[in-house]
Amino acid sequence: MISSKLPKSFSLAVARAIAFAAIAGLGASAWAQDKPNIIIMIGDDVGYGDVGAFMGGGVRGAPTPNLDRMAAEGMKLTSFYAQPTCTPTRASLVTGRLPIRAGFTFPLFPTMPMGLVPDEITLAELLEPAGYHSAAFGKWHLGDQEVHLPHKQGFDEFWGFLYHADAYLYPTDRDWRTDSQVGRMMKFRGIVEGKKGEMGRDVEPIDAKRLETIDRDVTTHAVDYINARAKDAKPFLLYVGFSKAHYKNFPLPEFRGKSQSGDFGDALMELDYHSGVVLDAVRTAGIAEKTLVFWFSDNGPSYDTFPDCGYTPFRGAKGQTYEGGVRMPCIAWWPGKIKPGTSSDGIMTTMDIFATAAKLGGVEAPKDRPIDGHDQTAFLTTGAKSATDTVYYYLGDRLMAIRSGKWKAHFVTADNWPDGPMQEHSVPQLYDLMTDPREAKNLVYIKTWEVVQANLLLRAHLAELKRFPNRVLTPPM
Amino acid sequence: MISSKLPKSFSLAVARAIAFAAIAGLGASAWAQDKPNIIIMIGDDVGYGDVGAFMGGGVRGAPTPNLDRMAAEGMKLTSFYAQPTCTPTRASLVTGRLPIRAGFTFPLFPTMPMGLVPDEITLAELLEPAGYHSAAFGKWHLGDQEVHLPHKQGFDEFWGFLYHADAYLYPTDRDWRTDSQVGRMMKFRGIVEGKKGEMGRDVEPIDAKRLETIDRDVTTHAVDYINARAKDAKPFLLYVGFSKAHYKNFPLPEFRGKSQSGDFGDALMELDYHSGVVLDAVRTAGIAEKTLVFWFSDNGPSYDTFPDCGYTPFRGAKGQTYEGGVRMPCIAWWPGKIKPGTSSDGIMTTMDIFATAAKLGGVEAPKDRPIDGHDQTAFLTTGAKSATDTVYYYLGDRLMAIRSGKWKAHFVTADNWPDGPMQEHSVPQLYDLMTDPREAKNLVYIKTWEVVQANLLLRAHLAELKRFPNRVLTPPM
Repeated sequence: MISSKLPKSFSLAVARAIAFAAIAGLGASAWAQDKPNIIIMIGDDVGYGDVGAFMGGGVRGAPTPNLDRMAAEGMKLTSFYAQPTCTPTRASLVTGRLPIRAGFTFPLFPTMPMGLVPDEITLAELLEPAGYHSAAFGKWHLGDQEVHLPHKQGFDEFWGFLYHADAYLYPTDRDWRTDSQVGRMMKFRGIVEGKKGEMGRDVEPIDAKRLETIDRDVTTHAVDYINARAKDAKPFLLYVGFSKAHYKNFPLPEFRGKSQSGDFGDALMELDYHSGVVLDAVRTAGIAEKTLVFWFSDNGPSYDTFPDCGYTPFRGAKGQTYEGGVRMPCIAWWPGKIKPGTSSDGIMTTMDIFATAAKLGGVEAPKDRPIDGHDQTAFLTTGAKSATDTVYYYLGDRLMAIRSGKWKAHFVTADNWPDGPMQEHSVPQLYDLMTDPREAKNLVYIKTWEVVQANLLLRAHLAELKRFPNRVLTPPM
Repeated sequence: MISSKLPKSFSLAVARAIAFAAIAGLGASAWAQDKPNIIIMIGDDVGYGDVGAFMGGGVRGAPTPNLDRMAAEGMKLTSFYAQPTCTPTRASLVTGRLPIRAGFTFPLFPTMPMGLVPDEITLAELLEPAGYHSAAFGKWHLGDQEVHLPHKQGFDEFWGFLYHADAYLYPTDRDWRTDSQVGRMMKFRGIVEGKKGEMGRDVEPIDAKRLETIDRDVTTHAVDYINARAKDAKPFLLYVGFSKAHYKNFPLPEFRGKSQSGDFGDALMELDYHSGVVLDAVRTAGIAEKTLVFWFSDNGPSYDTFPDCGYTPFRGAKGQTYEGGVRMPCIAWWPGKIKPGTSSDGIMTTMDIFATAAKLGGVEAPKDRPIDGHDQTAFLTTGAKSATDTVYYYLGDRLMAIRSGKWKAHFVTADNWPDGPMQEHSVPQLYDLMTDPREAKNLVYIKTWEVVQANLLLRAHLAELKRFPNRVLTPPM
């Protein structure tokens, strides 16, 4: 068990030793031949129903032709899971673990000095010994102290920002920049740039106006990076966190009024456009067949800001563990490896990307801690069944529900979070996600035995948590 | 104005004279060159969320690869409207008119001797003077008296059945066949076959067992017809009404258990399969480029039979004028004419197929009565805007709502029909279907002026109804 008190250097050394051991038989030159580049693009607060390929078209009055093309060339994942809010989802992606294991419960706000501790092994750290170069551009949201930033967490390069878009509106809503007490407390950082081994630099403040152009610049960084790395033999890992279409966001002026659905729709169209620009860079750089690209959203639509928000055809929304909060539109794209125009309802999660990257990079995922992700290489590239049929749904530090196959058991529900109370169910609520995708009809009293599997999974999960207690985040020393 | 008292021969003669006049400049041989075959396939009670291409894949645990392929080769229509129930939808398709104009309000049951009166001009009658041969196979549901049947309504051939699938379960649920009084009253007809100019023949009874195989036979009739007509220079009109996946339905034994979602899912997969067989016949007959095919559902999922029913990501269900009841998955397919892999949110209705067929057939739609459909040839084949931005939502004989562009005004709602009351809104409920596809937030008090357009349309519609009163159906003499 790794305690949060172990120095980073120690735990990382362990992880790297494991990683190197796994690839001992390979010469360095062989790495670059076989290992695909991995690009991960993340939209913000985009619902399942916002992406044309997932709802049939421009149902939202905001067509997404670039993502639809990506889906037509790749694979749609219709049971792809993230976490109910932003920071936990990004933590799960970067660590391959349930976010609570690294201590993440809810979105980080500028007043919270906690973040991703050095002990955690990130995707970039996982792939570094496999010969990968790496960069993160755009939204990070895993802490705003120096130790939390991507270039201190294994990434070779970082250019981006640290909070969700509406955080940058605080100064607009109230002139907190002139309120010295609050201003100091907030440690409100704008665009930050960093390189591995160097201190991060505060490059530029962010305000409502700057939010308009920020995804264009994120895209430019990604495209430049792709073009630069395409000439190198080393494979690369690229993380692109867009600020769009999160409420309240500000589309580029040329996208204003493009959609029929207000700011959110305009921002969604911009997000689609910029996602297409990144993908086009991969195509034109001639590296499409050695590049695996994922595109997904970080959590469900923010119905709290309704109607300026996304849309999901499922029950619930951001901040809930009903499907609407966590079931994301996700596209996996890898020409020549992933069959074009396919779609699968096999379960996959953000955490699986970590385990899949380990497999593709020829390294082993860390064995000294629970890794919740599963290697989905075969699922994605051969049409095999998903490597998992289980989903653990967390809200904050609460295990709310478990899905096993088509059955989903809710132990706790939060219909109105954060305004309403959590409701514990001594008899779990049970839904059949196939006959009842919207979780409308609790079947527990006529399908009681289907709860047994969820209970067994629950017991095993709790036992594992005893052996590997979750990290409790504290401000850095 | 055509009164229902005018003899059929008179009104038809008028319509045909108009039709012929429109194509007076064309020689008979030119017809066959330019006019596409038109095939219309209809699923029963299939929701928008049941078709993979519209929800991203096998979300329902019942993949629809054949329809997904059809969509990839054709155009998805994401704002395609039918009526809230079965008979009205089929009436609207066949007449090109709001169903109430022909007197249709609700599904016909075996005890109701009313049906499609001879005065109505059907699709087949419209296209006959344009040189089309025509056939209807499968579910008709526009009356069970001889005068109502397809071969008396312009179709050259008919093989099919007259009611919704669960009608055939009455004798199973209660032995009504031995109850002579009810049995006589029901006039319960099974499979009927008819040829133009001949009397229809009762071929075979239908019971639960026969429902299993009936869509296979409907498909065989359609395929045989396609193969036979493909050799002929005349264009053809083919109407295929599947019995599946309507609750309570019986999938072919080889589809039992294929899905993860019970009888409905299995029946849905069978429906997908048979739809693919029909389309394959078009492909292999070498007539794909001269054949326009539509596939859609007749109304929303029957949530009354939940969970053995379809799924819609919209509000409401069958029997309601919320989007879930009337917004259908629809695919238009015409290789070489309709751009593959496209999707449009432009409004189209079942009635538009009538007007579009008139255009494609080179005949004029009747001018002696309101035709509510619009010619959508340009919309489908050139990427032009839809010919209409208006939808009139009827439930029974009530005009419930009007959509104009993205705004939908509900004058009357029926949240719980048929069990609950209708609720009249002296101030209409107003929804923005783009920001709020699920009709969750009534915006009338902050967007009052958006009701004005709906009110203007309502006034014009009521004025037209004064000039052209709706037909009142009575039992045939």
